[in-house]
Amino acid sequence: MSSEPLLSQLIESLRCLPGVGPKTAQRMALHLLERNREGGLQLSAVLVEAMQKIGRCKQCRDLTELELCSICANPGRDQTLLCVVESPVDVLAIEQATAFRGRYFVLLGRLSPLDGIGPAELGLDQLAKRLEANPPEEMIIATNPTVEGEATSYYLQRMAGKHGIRVTRISHGVPLGGELEYTDQSTLAHAFGSRQLVD
Amino acid sequence: MSSEPLLSQLIESLRCLPGVGPKTAQRMALHLLERNREGGLQLSAVLVEAMQKIGRCKQCRDLTELELCSICANPGRDQTLLCVVESPVDVLAIEQATAFRGRYFVLLGRLSPLDGIGPAELGLDQLAKRLEANPPEEMIIATNPTVEGEATSYYLQRMAGKHGIRVTRISHGVPLGGELEYTDQSTLAHAFGSRQLVD
Repeated sequence: MSSEPLLSQLIESLRCLPGVGPKTAQRMALHLLERNREGGLQLSAVLVEAMQKIGRCKQCRDLTELELCSICANPGRDQTLLCVVESPVDVLAIEQATAFRGRYFVLLGRLSPLDGIGPAELGLDQLAKRLEANPPEEMIIATNPTVEGEATSYYLQRMAGKHGIRVTRISHGVPLGGELEYTDQSTLAHAFGSRQLVD
Repeated sequence: MSSEPLLSQLIESLRCLPGVGPKTAQRMALHLLERNREGGLQLSAVLVEAMQKIGRCKQCRDLTELELCSICANPGRDQTLLCVVESPVDVLAIEQATAFRGRYFVLLGRLSPLDGIGPAELGLDQLAKRLEANPPEEMIIATNPTVEGEATSYYLQRMAGKHGIRVTRISHGVPLGGELEYTDQSTLAHAFGSRQLVD
């Protein structure tokens, strides 16, 4: 740590970024000061604006600075497909990797009663109203394949079942390019159990 | 990249940090927005202050928001020892690793005539005046062991020689904990050539 007060404060503040330890923070601070003060100033301006203005989309709970996020506000997106994910990163990942043109609902978490996260915290009442008022033809559940993600998925399946909506779950198994030898046992067991008929 | 304008701007701005690519920037932006808005706001405030206020120490050219850095301003630091380094990171590294209690001079670069970096750009006129007015007993040259660093070191040796100052250079060789087998050839050759008598 530097003995200059403002410089140490900068290094300390940079550590609020995930994955940034003391050495990396020091390198970042000196890089900005020595080579890119303009970039630092711009980052500061965007940061404060983003922290203050970015909120939640009223309809899907994704991050946006507007009332509706750009996906919900886009009339070109298919209203009959609804994909439920745990977090905004999942929306970004699906948008980048797939050709999905439907809409999303972001839970901002997963059912975890021990941590005090129940259906209300995940906005499931809001989702229930949406399924009631404007039911999609298909609801794709894309929660993570963890214990809590599976519990959440099960809860969502029952909710959608009440409204007679077709429910699908993204498939799980051996990743493409992976090798059976290095796949963990539970993934391999799941892949084996959920084998599909080849036409 | 997100389709939300402010969020994409934040992700883009975070990429001014060294070693931060698109995926890391995305993770950082979402982490701040979802879990640590306060940290983000504080980082923004410190960033703008640091970029605007941190300048150079008048005496040693190190980074500081004051006229003199805390080392130059500290009367307890030994005036008879002067360590010359290339960059502020080197000052931090030496302060953290050694018990050196003398003063520094920061070149902010190294001699590199092809890139237009000559003695004037490195503040060597300022250093010459300091050696004239207030000569230390020993000048420790801690430039990096690269071609340019060695050239700079040679130039500094001649400067100090004119004022009859004892010049030392930090030692180079096999790093502690390293193994000869994995040490690069030029380091090993240097270590062999500069072997020292064991008492």
